[in-house]
Amino acid sequence: MAHHAPLTAAGPQFALADVDPASTPGFDGGKKAGRRALAKGAAELAELQERLFAAGLNGDRRSVLLVLQAMDTAGKGGVVSHVVGSVDVQGVALHAFKAPTDEEKAHDVLWRIRRELPAPGMLGVFDRSHYEDVLIHRVHALASPEVIEARYAAIVDFEAELVAAGTTIVKVMLHISPQEQRDRLLARLDDPTKQWKYSPGDVDERELWGRYMEEYEIAIRRTSTPDAPWYVVPADHKFARLAVQRLLTDALRGLDLHWPRPDYDVAAERARLLP
Amino acid sequence: MAHHAPLTAAGPQFALADVDPASTPGFDGGKKAGRRALAKGAAELAELQERLFAAGLNGDRRSVLLVLQAMDTAGKGGVVSHVVGSVDVQGVALHAFKAPTDEEKAHDVLWRIRRELPAPGMLGVFDRSHYEDVLIHRVHALASPEVIEARYAAIVDFEAELVAAGTTIVKVMLHISPQEQRDRLLARLDDPTKQWKYSPGDVDERELWGRYMEEYEIAIRRTSTPDAPWYVVPADHKFARLAVQRLLTDALRGLDLHWPRPDYDVAAERARLLP
Repeated sequence: MAHHAPLTAAGPQFALADVDPASTPGFDGGKKAGRRALAKGAAELAELQERLFAAGLNGDRRSVLLVLQAMDTAGKGGVVSHVVGSVDVQGVALHAFKAPTDEEKAHDVLWRIRRELPAPGMLGVFDRSHYEDVLIHRVHALASPEVIEARYAAIVDFEAELVAAGTTIVKVMLHISPQEQRDRLLARLDDPTKQWKYSPGDVDERELWGRYMEEYEIAIRRTSTPDAPWYVVPADHKFARLAVQRLLTDALRGLDLHWPRPDYDVAAERARLLP
Repeated sequence: MAHHAPLTAAGPQFALADVDPASTPGFDGGKKAGRRALAKGAAELAELQERLFAAGLNGDRRSVLLVLQAMDTAGKGGVVSHVVGSVDVQGVALHAFKAPTDEEKAHDVLWRIRRELPAPGMLGVFDRSHYEDVLIHRVHALASPEVIEARYAAIVDFEAELVAAGTTIVKVMLHISPQEQRDRLLARLDDPTKQWKYSPGDVDERELWGRYMEEYEIAIRRTSTPDAPWYVVPADHKFARLAVQRLLTDALRGLDLHWPRPDYDVAAERARLLP
């Protein structure tokens, strides 16, 4: 793994071809140093998250929302288990969006998203999201080009509204190479404790790799804003977990969270308990 | 800590006075051995939970529901963070029930509970539950005696329905002594990073300790059934975490879960990936 400049947000000229899935921007250690850094970062992330949760109980309306998008096997599950999973589960609002139900299809595409937004004080995590509606919908022509075209603007407006209401949004595409995906799919096939994670449908989507990459690039260009930026995280290595941990840590640091001051009289309460 | 017989489910003659909050039934080690046992048990629990999750994705309708009830500071949060938090957050459906909203009050007391039941394959966790409606409601006379009387039977019927639909229910009361609660409340008051967890209202409830214990005993006697048993876990020590871990592990073992067999042709899929 080579040393690189730190990860930066994607801009309107973003090109997916510029991101090497095997790179590790901002980190030049090996596997062992990566594991150590992840363990060390977990403690800070957990404390920041607890401060957010505490603030939420004390009237602070802010929240954080991590949006995860990726091709299959890119490591969304690992990020959720090992990065999000290292903070107190009581402060996490995780939702995995699957193919929409009939009820969901009867509404506009943001309807089901709005129902799962994090409450104040919570760290929300979307495993897939409203971006499916401009990715898979374009690749498979599940909606007309005009309808999908309107969705980019609707998404930007929607996210701006969330940010204005106090939600810090961190959008992450985990970017793997098709070669790495093949190896991971084969590893699933070879392991009886992992075969349940394999779906033949994943290979159907894999055969549309180039189309997906085109649509990811377009979606990221159109919807990466200063308030709700996209980060494309190279994900051929477990470095991706460390990168997402750092993005979340930075987002929480930016909220300048302090432990709430008690709104009761500490001495009086002590006296009630020690009669 | 003395050695005791293992924890058993409460029966219709259950007496809270028979449970010493400082005891550690089924465990005779010290703090260090307890931490080791908890870490060791976490790996088994995590694998069992993953098998449940995998089964759920493969059409198995079963789920597990942990119901946690306790006086403040008894350690519900610690159980959630350190026992439930040791399994993959993707397979956990945690809900903390607060004072009911106006919308919730407009419905019968089980309405909001039904909305949060675990989906197939999930480990559901209720931090407080429908039992608040026969505990705090009796202590504070928030409903008439006749209305509350009817709730015990409604709860037993409701839980029997869940069990018949495939949910394994584990109900836990974390039982601390009032002396231990006082020490824990004082510790919160003394620590600026914990003061947000303290609420003067907790001391108001503390002053009704005897009434709460009476109502817990009645509720447990009336609703501990072979299918949906109550376990009263002594909680003056962190042993409580180990005890709940073991209860969950036993519940999952009882489901006899195996990794799902692939419903696709493994060799054919390998061939698709290796052209």
